[in-house]
Amino acid sequence: MFIKNDQVIYSFKPENKPVAEVENGSIITFQTCDCFANQIISSEQSIDSLDWNRVNPATGPVFIRGAEPGDSLKVSILKIKLANSGVMAAIPGFGVLGKRVEKASIKIIPINENVAYFNDLLLTVKPMIGVIGVAPKEGEFPCGTPGKHGGNLDTNLVCEGNEIILPVNVPGALLALGDIHARMGDGEVWVTGIETAAEVTVKVEVLKNFKVSEPVIINDDIVAFLASADTLDEAVEKATQYGVDVLTDLGLDLNEAGMLLSAVGDLQISQVVDPLKTARLVMPRWILTKYGLKIE
Amino acid sequence: MFIKNDQVIYSFKPENKPVAEVENGSIITFQTCDCFANQIISSEQSIDSLDWNRVNPATGPVFIRGAEPGDSLKVSILKIKLANSGVMAAIPGFGVLGKRVEKASIKIIPINENVAYFNDLLLTVKPMIGVIGVAPKEGEFPCGTPGKHGGNLDTNLVCEGNEIILPVNVPGALLALGDIHARMGDGEVWVTGIETAAEVTVKVEVLKNFKVSEPVIINDDIVAFLASADTLDEAVEKATQYGVDVLTDLGLDLNEAGMLLSAVGDLQISQVVDPLKTARLVMPRWILTKYGLKIE
Ligand SMILES: [Ca+2]
Ligand SMILES: [Ca+2]
Ligand SMILES: [Ca+2]
Ligand SMILES: [Ca+2]
Ligand SMILES: [Ca+2]
Repeated sequence: MFIKNDQVIYSFKPENKPVAEVENGSIITFQTCDCFANQIISSEQSIDSLDWNRVNPATGPVFIRGAEPGDSLKVSILKIKLANSGVMAAIPGFGVLGKRVEKASIKIIPINENVAYFNDLLLTVKPMIGVIGVAPKEGEFPCGTPGKHGGNLDTNLVCEGNEIILPVNVPGALLALGDIHARMGDGEVWVTGIETAAEVTVKVEVLKNFKVSEPVIINDDIVAFLASADTLDEAVEKATQYGVDVLTDLGLDLNEAGMLLSAVGDLQISQVVDPLKTARLVMPRWILTKYGLKIE
Repeated sequence: MFIKNDQVIYSFKPENKPVAEVENGSIITFQTCDCFANQIISSEQSIDSLDWNRVNPATGPVFIRGAEPGDSLKVSILKIKLANSGVMAAIPGFGVLGKRVEKASIKIIPINENVAYFNDLLLTVKPMIGVIGVAPKEGEFPCGTPGKHGGNLDTNLVCEGNEIILPVNVPGALLALGDIHARMGDGEVWVTGIETAAEVTVKVEVLKNFKVSEPVIINDDIVAFLASADTLDEAVEKATQYGVDVLTDLGLDLNEAGMLLSAVGDLQISQVVDPLKTARLVMPRWILTKYGLKIE
């Protein structure tokens, strides 16, 4: 299944019409625009010339058969194929130090094989997905916002080889994704990564017996509990809570769970520049498995 | 030079009397108590029975000849030798979810070779220094507080093989350290790591031409700018500012510096449970070196 980049949404909502319908277990390739809908082709372009109603397009949504509210959707990221050019921007008022940015800049970043060219710096690419999500139960979340449904998570762990688990809120889940980065620092401090078009190949599977409140990312080594909130302080509190809840649900005493997290759980930053900030608590998977966690 | 663990301070201040004086370039071994001053020897002990005036002792301070205000002190961490037992605690009101902790717990964690035993979990140790600092120019900072002078940074990067650079505020710098952890998750969410006594061997060198506002940690691969503040959001803003300042001092335009950081600078969490919270911006060292950064 191949979904073209002219089939996009700008917000996640239950009313979005699916552009395709697939069986549980399918492999899908999403062709994605960059976060500016591929509008930037030159560093000479004025940022004001962009159509700002067309930022953060997510390709989709796709209806996954068998996905029902209360299930989870596991999306295994098999391949991220980058375009041969990326773009970065600086925009007054945006980013950690947006108040210091006096004028906008646009920067074209050529990409060749596994290298992105930032001036004369050769940067190894670390491809990741910025926006990935499903429809919320109700309401409408612009693709630039992260939340319990996923969305603009801007989390480096959403990369090849990892799996992201999202809560299913509506029949079919309605998966969409976009906003690929050739590379992004944790935090995304100046509000863009190296933004690029891409082709993203994923496998989708419905989990009937593993519930998540917010997105969870796994691989063989880790389980990462994501949380988005108004402040980073609130986001780390929520992420910590998710980690504690999993351990106490597995039978640990609260204090035991907390001390264990304090020794082996890593609080990490996903991004601090979107409408909500996103943090994660990363646990060694073997410890959760030893205490009985099953993800299925 | 060997500094015994009966020579400790509980706050960093200019008036602390040096317990030893060494030449620039010396190697020093600090014998350290754990953060509870080795008062806990059994999990049956009541947390209320502890003398709370004796928490977070730092061994020292040591006067380094040639260190003058305005210089920096580079402390290379050569060796952290752990004791054969550690302790963790849960304390009502402390930690990210302290409001949920109803009763105190103390947990003894045996340590053997490179393994810490948390119940039947065998955890590989990752030794690091919780408290390391120099005297401030004036005033007094309890060893439990992080700040520009260092102190309770609780930062996993303060480990064997890395170097921490501290601002010198008074003649001789007055270096002290303690609060070693056999292992701690980033964030230290439940307020302790695996606390243990230790022997820490460091080399001290005065840098005359590299100024720092807050502690900086380096190794061959990275330069990490630490920042402590009331909230994590403020701490990441300060850390980002330090990273931008270094790049603009090296001649980059503000927007170029910011976009570069956004692609390759990682915002990370040190700890979120001390009186101030500590974050860091981690940059690839080769990039700073390419733009001309010299640390000397
Ligand atoms: Ca994004
Ligand atoms: Ca983006
Ligand atoms: Ca973003
Ligand atoms: Ca500490
Ligand atoms: Ca400690």
